[in-house]
Amino acid sequence: MQSAAIIPASALDGFLAELTGLDGLAAADILPAGSACAPYESDIANCSGKAAAVILPRDTAAVSAIMRAAVRHGIRLIAQGNRSGLVGAAIADGSGTQVIISLSRMRQIRSIDLANRSVIAEAGVLLSELNRQLEPQSLHFPIDIGSDPAIGGLIGANAGGSRLLRHGDVRHNLLGIEAVLADADGTVVELLAPLRKNNTGIDLKQLFVGTGGAFGIVTAATLDLKRLDQSNQTMFLALPGHAAALDVLLAFEQTFGDLLCAFEVISAAALDITLRNFPALRHPFDASAGCYALVEIASSMPGLNPLLAQQAEDLLEQLHGREQIANAAFGPAESFWPLRDNLPPAIAKEGLPLSFDVAFPRSQLAAFRDEAAQWLQHQHPLLQLYDFGHFADGGCHLIVLLPHDQVERYGIARIVALRSAIYQLVCEHGGSFSAEHGIGPLNAPYYRKYTAPKVKQISAALQHLMDPQAVLGRYRYS
Amino acid sequence: MQSAAIIPASALDGFLAELTGLDGLAAADILPAGSACAPYESDIANCSGKAAAVILPRDTAAVSAIMRAAVRHGIRLIAQGNRSGLVGAAIADGSGTQVIISLSRMRQIRSIDLANRSVIAEAGVLLSELNRQLEPQSLHFPIDIGSDPAIGGLIGANAGGSRLLRHGDVRHNLLGIEAVLADADGTVVELLAPLRKNNTGIDLKQLFVGTGGAFGIVTAATLDLKRLDQSNQTMFLALPGHAAALDVLLAFEQTFGDLLCAFEVISAAALDITLRNFPALRHPFDASAGCYALVEIASSMPGLNPLLAQQAEDLLEQLHGREQIANAAFGPAESFWPLRDNLPPAIAKEGLPLSFDVAFPRSQLAAFRDEAAQWLQHQHPLLQLYDFGHFADGGCHLIVLLPHDQVERYGIARIVALRSAIYQLVCEHGGSFSAEHGIGPLNAPYYRKYTAPKVKQISAALQHLMDPQAVLGRYRYS
Repeated sequence: MQSAAIIPASALDGFLAELTGLDGLAAADILPAGSACAPYESDIANCSGKAAAVILPRDTAAVSAIMRAAVRHGIRLIAQGNRSGLVGAAIADGSGTQVIISLSRMRQIRSIDLANRSVIAEAGVLLSELNRQLEPQSLHFPIDIGSDPAIGGLIGANAGGSRLLRHGDVRHNLLGIEAVLADADGTVVELLAPLRKNNTGIDLKQLFVGTGGAFGIVTAATLDLKRLDQSNQTMFLALPGHAAALDVLLAFEQTFGDLLCAFEVISAAALDITLRNFPALRHPFDASAGCYALVEIASSMPGLNPLLAQQAEDLLEQLHGREQIANAAFGPAESFWPLRDNLPPAIAKEGLPLSFDVAFPRSQLAAFRDEAAQWLQHQHPLLQLYDFGHFADGGCHLIVLLPHDQVERYGIARIVALRSAIYQLVCEHGGSFSAEHGIGPLNAPYYRKYTAPKVKQISAALQHLMDPQAVLGRYRYS
Repeated sequence: MQSAAIIPASALDGFLAELTGLDGLAAADILPAGSACAPYESDIANCSGKAAAVILPRDTAAVSAIMRAAVRHGIRLIAQGNRSGLVGAAIADGSGTQVIISLSRMRQIRSIDLANRSVIAEAGVLLSELNRQLEPQSLHFPIDIGSDPAIGGLIGANAGGSRLLRHGDVRHNLLGIEAVLADADGTVVELLAPLRKNNTGIDLKQLFVGTGGAFGIVTAATLDLKRLDQSNQTMFLALPGHAAALDVLLAFEQTFGDLLCAFEVISAAALDITLRNFPALRHPFDASAGCYALVEIASSMPGLNPLLAQQAEDLLEQLHGREQIANAAFGPAESFWPLRDNLPPAIAKEGLPLSFDVAFPRSQLAAFRDEAAQWLQHQHPLLQLYDFGHFADGGCHLIVLLPHDQVERYGIARIVALRSAIYQLVCEHGGSFSAEHGIGPLNAPYYRKYTAPKVKQISAALQHLMDPQAVLGRYRYS
């Protein structure tokens, strides 16, 4: 698996020597192996490794120079953003021979075109920073996720998030890219034109989306911006169970059409563990229910709130009359989203979470969830299932919790078997084993298992075309 | 340019002989060269050629068999939908050696998943037919264009249309594809899963979007559906000139946010020629203006019309007070869209139209348009410029009309020089020389001229990877 083993130490020395004195790369931008690299050696998914060095270029020319040197010396480069991925794609392996190229010092917002509603931002710009700068103009980049990735990481994972229903994923909002290719010249491909319609041949930027830095290092991107919401109604619903969620979703779509912005379903156990670990949060209702839905109706058109509130009340009354919901609460968005966003940290406090980022046709989601819960109860009665997710787009975050006192008893083999069984169930229900995080070492076995041989073959050939010396990234699509 | 010349007649005979008696391909589905092929030999852009044969398969297995035979005998296949493209990509060249594979008999809607809002449709299904079948469910595939393409053609061109602002282009609404590859096995790649989140490696379906059948023959697609509009306000505005259009657009975006669905700008000359040639149409105003805008505010949420109408009236009053509009008329959508949709046929009645399907950053569009008009007036005073387009997404349809009595006087060389000069101006304004129709023989010279060498090199290598024997399509990306 690791081509690193064949790289002699002298290659690394030669590589690092070439970087000395480059424009856009000060001595302080090159961290030798050791403690200085530690912050770059693990991610929020607790994936960790050992870097041969960490390089922190400040401009695209420096990335190109690094690439030239890496190709010449046969060094494996791992592009890294803000380490918020869940599959380990941006972390060096354990060999100590892979070099991290962190884009975190490429943080310029190169230009904002307000009339065009577009921005050109470098790969290291954080989503939060971008949106902070756009807010005074009532604009934002509308990918809404719990973590705070860099733009390059967003592209590498093709993030989706909670409002995909309305805004689409990163691919839908990407107008252009600038990338450095893994060739002897470190060629810079500049495709940054802020055009919404542009069909002048193969759309090469698509190759870089969702492929975790395996096709080149994205150094900047042109992003389509949306106006910030000016009208918003957020509500929290108690449902009799997951089976009712689809009918409730369809009723909301019928009533609110494209103004339905988010429809997140949270299981009863998931809400309970969140409240237990974050005592400052309050249960919205007196009695617990089968599951819950966090619903947001929103628009960047101002002045709709009175009408939206009235329509929502009418709809909720109907749903209540049909016993499709048990209870409902209105409130500002800030009062309900923490109930959902604090779920992953809450679970992490009680043990080892096994996370599954999966997606389904909406029509299959509830059936999968119920079958997974039953299977777990029979096969692993000591483990608890927590699920929440973007019901409206078929996305589901499923977390199986190994309580602290069970981790050792389970052991790695049984955990792997459990993961494999869940993914098998996902695929039997027509689902995706990686909804929003791409492929990395943590889910690569499932790529090999569930991808059609011909698709793997074409993918490997494409990757070989773009990176013939296997300089880039953690994963080969083979 | 034509590899066809080296194909001996015996190759064609061998190819056709192999097709006889195949399942899914009756004798009546194979049209030999000659008059039977005529309906498949020209398109709405008046691009024409001569087919060696036309094959009309009825299922994917037949397409695969045709591909196997084509690869074995070295036959060039041109995939064809409903011949509504503008660049000639789906028409055989003049050599009489290329075989048209028309998808027009693959017209099954394989399945509709209402809960998932998705459909699996074969490549030959017409957009109009698909939407007719979806209408009772209040759903549609939201690509809104004047012509009536087949699903396969929509994908090959990555069509955008008048409501891209709100719904995006075909790529944004494509969940999956099934395609037959140009290899010895005629491999069928089935990627039809109706998933909105699915990042399990390289998203191969992207290769088939906007590449006009050069990467494989798309036989079916999974499409994301949207709910039909339930609220709609359409208005027609008289503006002092193109320079005011951007401010008016931004004012509409501020007032209506994401409910702004279309903002089409039409020049005064364009409206005049439409009215002159379609006497049943009426000018919405007593006096003519610098240019016009057709604006649509819409949502699939019902019940918004009173509020939208009130807000629109208030906004129009403000714009009038600021002299940004001269006049405005409300009416049902059907009363205004014909003023825009009948422009191309109106122009065709008065001479030879030279059409340019281009796009810009919105901030550049008016400047380009004015410069193009001035240039034409100086250099070609006998020719008239007509422009209309999707101002809100930067798209612009520019038509230069050669009156009937000038066509001969101009001649082909001068026409080519004129086209080149306009495209040069497009690129100087940061624009795209092909917004919505991809690359075909009609605009291939501009691909060669305006595409960066490295992009051309990668594109050619990708195409070679997917079609090493150059079996598919009219254009090689080189």
